[in-house]
Amino acid sequence: MLSWVDGQPAELLSVKDRGLAYGDGLFATLGVRNGRPQLLERQLARLQLGCQRLALPCDQELVRRELLTFAAQMGSGVLKLIVTRGDGQRGYAAPQPTQSRRILQAAPLPSYPSINAEQGVQLFPCITRLAEQPLLAGLKHLNRLEQVLARAEWQSSDYAEGLLCDVSGRVIEGVYSNLFMVQRQQLLTPALSRCGVAGVMRAELLAQAAALGVVVVERDISYAELLAADEVFVCNSLYGIWPVRSLAAHDWSVGPLTRKLQAIADDLLGC
Amino acid sequence: MLSWVDGQPAELLSVKDRGLAYGDGLFATLGVRNGRPQLLERQLARLQLGCQRLALPCDQELVRRELLTFAAQMGSGVLKLIVTRGDGQRGYAAPQPTQSRRILQAAPLPSYPSINAEQGVQLFPCITRLAEQPLLAGLKHLNRLEQVLARAEWQSSDYAEGLLCDVSGRVIEGVYSNLFMVQRQQLLTPALSRCGVAGVMRAELLAQAAALGVVVVERDISYAELLAADEVFVCNSLYGIWPVRSLAAHDWSVGPLTRKLQAIADDLLGC
Repeated sequence: MLSWVDGQPAELLSVKDRGLAYGDGLFATLGVRNGRPQLLERQLARLQLGCQRLALPCDQELVRRELLTFAAQMGSGVLKLIVTRGDGQRGYAAPQPTQSRRILQAAPLPSYPSINAEQGVQLFPCITRLAEQPLLAGLKHLNRLEQVLARAEWQSSDYAEGLLCDVSGRVIEGVYSNLFMVQRQQLLTPALSRCGVAGVMRAELLAQAAALGVVVVERDISYAELLAADEVFVCNSLYGIWPVRSLAAHDWSVGPLTRKLQAIADDLLGC
Repeated sequence: MLSWVDGQPAELLSVKDRGLAYGDGLFATLGVRNGRPQLLERQLARLQLGCQRLALPCDQELVRRELLTFAAQMGSGVLKLIVTRGDGQRGYAAPQPTQSRRILQAAPLPSYPSINAEQGVQLFPCITRLAEQPLLAGLKHLNRLEQVLARAEWQSSDYAEGLLCDVSGRVIEGVYSNLFMVQRQQLLTPALSRCGVAGVMRAELLAQAAALGVVVVERDISYAELLAADEVFVCNSLYGIWPVRSLAAHDWSVGPLTRKLQAIADDLLGC
């Protein structure tokens, strides 16, 4: 498996890295097709925002160049980028100066069952709830134990994704994806001001739907509202959109706005 | 700096480690004096509890042997143990079977100003609040971005520690320590059922104080209650006890129960 650490081929990194010690860093998962990283500008914009919020120094142009060069070598697959605060001494205080670290890893494109995109997926209702931490909300940071616990809740391949709510019971996202619902022609997605990951496909779909003239709303969504939705789908930057056909005892059919946005996502990803 | 990975001298580990990817693991910080890890049984008990709660397979006897052998080589210093879920594939699902990984690192004993133990410390009132996540509360896990953010709030060496409250405003702990207060001869420490790290020195002091006949209470503590306390101190497994002499505009003098427990902690640690 191809991997780089700080621009050099390497499969190992220092045990002193603060990404290991504290999860002190960010990551991104990029689809690569024809040697090009997908949704690159949105990925870089989100990385930059995360670096600002964590006060994590990071040379964005260097990251861009490395992503492009690495992706060209991959051809196709999944590119994972990790940016950490680099090596630390003992203790939480950031080293001065900080030498942040870049880690790139290649993996094959996953082969999802075609039924997921065509007929939709079943969501597993996760008992694990997301804690509310506005300082970290929206970021794709390396503190992911909640997702690890949630993903461990189901083994059956009947469930392609799990639904995560916050500790107050609001609907937030999937374990690997963002969630949208359609209600009275409006496209709604949970506000991510307290928890959750603001995915790049989510951002792209919000922009694309608005450009189509669809009313787009980011706000708190209750579980009851989700169950009452006309259409539900999940999205991420690798597969685009999967309609949701069931959650617990509730079923949805795949609706027209879901199909329209799915076609747009497929175009973007070259699926 | 001496370090081991899975029982072998090594300063590097795989970029695929889930400790890096997700903070999927636990850690412990042990003082080592005369070649012996301190509070070893309590450290191992907490590790075992954490492994159970994260469903992290870990050979406790192997960890014990490694800690003893490593500490003997160190002589004195700080021993950091990290246990991760080992290498992962892409995605949050745990690899089957899981090969968990042990990382040991040595560092010198820190040289704290003697005034901290003698006259007490000033607490910095951190704005960063701890999120409430009962599934992870009490564990010394690797998801520590909240502590990183909190520690970045102050630079002045006037503050040896910072006070962390939860998102509801309850007093929880220090960034590096647990917190106790004395009120009407009772010893109180915050309940850690929603957030916080249940330190081994905290557990030891709760047991020692109870053995002295002191009434010991773990419960929710408000900021106002803390300010009204007769005595306040912080503790951890490296320095034992530091009295707290001030927080924001409030001052405390060092009280008799603090001094009594401090002497016990010093004995335990051989300070």
